[in-house]
Amino acid sequence: MTASGLPMTVPARGLPARVRIHEVGARDGLQNEKTVVPTEIKAEFVHRLAGAGLPVVEATSFVHPRWVPQLADAEELFGKLLDVDGLDPAMLPVLVPNDRGLDRALALGARSVAVFASATESFARANLNRTVDEALSMFAPVVARSKEAGVRVRGYLSMCFGDPWEGPVPIEQVVRVCRALLGMGCDELSLGDTIGVATPGHVRALLTALNGAGVDTGRIGVHFHDTYGQALANTLAALEHGVTTVDASAGGLGGCPYAKSATGNLATEDLVWMLHGLGIDTGVDLGALTDTSVWMAEALGRPSPSRTVRALSHKE
Amino acid sequence: MTASGLPMTVPARGLPARVRIHEVGARDGLQNEKTVVPTEIKAEFVHRLAGAGLPVVEATSFVHPRWVPQLADAEELFGKLLDVDGLDPAMLPVLVPNDRGLDRALALGARSVAVFASATESFARANLNRTVDEALSMFAPVVARSKEAGVRVRGYLSMCFGDPWEGPVPIEQVVRVCRALLGMGCDELSLGDTIGVATPGHVRALLTALNGAGVDTGRIGVHFHDTYGQALANTLAALEHGVTTVDASAGGLGGCPYAKSATGNLATEDLVWMLHGLGIDTGVDLGALTDTSVWMAEALGRPSPSRTVRALSHKE
Repeated sequence: MTASGLPMTVPARGLPARVRIHEVGARDGLQNEKTVVPTEIKAEFVHRLAGAGLPVVEATSFVHPRWVPQLADAEELFGKLLDVDGLDPAMLPVLVPNDRGLDRALALGARSVAVFASATESFARANLNRTVDEALSMFAPVVARSKEAGVRVRGYLSMCFGDPWEGPVPIEQVVRVCRALLGMGCDELSLGDTIGVATPGHVRALLTALNGAGVDTGRIGVHFHDTYGQALANTLAALEHGVTTVDASAGGLGGCPYAKSATGNLATEDLVWMLHGLGIDTGVDLGALTDTSVWMAEALGRPSPSRTVRALSHKE
Repeated sequence: MTASGLPMTVPARGLPARVRIHEVGARDGLQNEKTVVPTEIKAEFVHRLAGAGLPVVEATSFVHPRWVPQLADAEELFGKLLDVDGLDPAMLPVLVPNDRGLDRALALGARSVAVFASATESFARANLNRTVDEALSMFAPVVARSKEAGVRVRGYLSMCFGDPWEGPVPIEQVVRVCRALLGMGCDELSLGDTIGVATPGHVRALLTALNGAGVDTGRIGVHFHDTYGQALANTLAALEHGVTTVDASAGGLGGCPYAKSATGNLATEDLVWMLHGLGIDTGVDLGALTDTSVWMAEALGRPSPSRTVRALSHKE
């Protein structure tokens, strides 16, 4: 642990007073883990993340178990979180790919769901076996039924900056899909830099283009990956633009399939370090969060890729 | 390797058109390596870094060999770089701690040197066994003699944001030492976040305070560490302020003594990815630089902690 009183809080002009961290470690993070994590461990993970003050903890995904075996226990886990742990379903979004997934989620008491679209045809084909527009058509009734049920809907959008097959993704293509998701009733977008190639000017340009197309910044969340180490710089650019919802994964869980302990998702601890240093309120207890990530890393049997977790958990 | 054409270049308003990267891997990076690297490998490393387009490659340090055994071959290495490899000494700064170090460097033909001061008493004591002012008194004649010889002088300043013993470092304390270094004739400062705790508001505040004290931004370089993952976000804040000299270490070499493959220094590749994405000219060939870091990592027997190096060197 470093000397107390660090990071020193020095606010910067033009940044939001408060940021809402959308914690994705239990879903997006674990989804990429090959070792199947026991349901009890997942439940404790979500519980501890909520206890550390994270306002939104994405819990699981109601996709078909064949697609994501790690999340095949969605019913059992989500039921336990609500019934045994007594957590508020409004703070536990779950992914729903289609009508059947929504049925399962609603039956268990879900109050916040997410659909996941792609900005590129290549990834829509790879991830959903559909064109971009076919996927949007699949989501439209899911979103409509959610809204009728008074359930909050987030729209994830993958490959907003670069695509592994197509290279740079034109901004107007991203704007079109964003408008479609909001038009069908999504309350919030999450702009994903799925392969981590974005840089701060690209972030500013996309946000500016979205505003120009009538999208309010308050409805935009950002989801950066650290594949090239750019996630926090991109986040700073988004904050400077007024974005107040930032996705991150406790301990940097998930993401990079090819390098042991290399990262994909922005680590929540690295994000919190920056936000607290900037005097931006998050409600998060960094010590409790770090302890949780250290515990989860031990359960997974490998060190956390988060630099803040490594630095803070180092024993002299 | 990711799809070609990435990162997509999207310039951002208010940033410099060109950044001068001060490469510290061969000195600051290797200095922290326990395994002594053969002189021939070091020479090839410097040569390849220069060949990759880096405009400044810090070569070695003329401290007493007892202090830094890794750099005990300073004479042999520096002589070889100039005489055998034919590199320009103006692009190869060397560290000199005192008059004797300067004598050794000048005798070999050094044209660019650096002294290293501390912003805190605790680190001055730990690193130099002197008070801050005693260290400055030791450097004054070194700087004066360098200037008389027409040699460029850089002044490193450690612990500009936080100190492991003292915690947060008051900005006015940093400004005082910066002014002293410039007052004795240093051409350039390098503001070091030695323990990596800075955040972007703190960076902006220090730069603003330095300007307020009459220090021109053109004379300020920044030297961030990635201990808490903040280096690139802090760099962006410095660029937004107009800073055009940024220190970085090829492959992220050096720094973190406690975690294998965890990083201290900002990796040059991660920096170049951001700068090129922003359309900022560096003169660096990212592919050649990455190849060099992969080669050096193999020589050291452990993977590079740079995320960009890991991502770009991944073979499917």
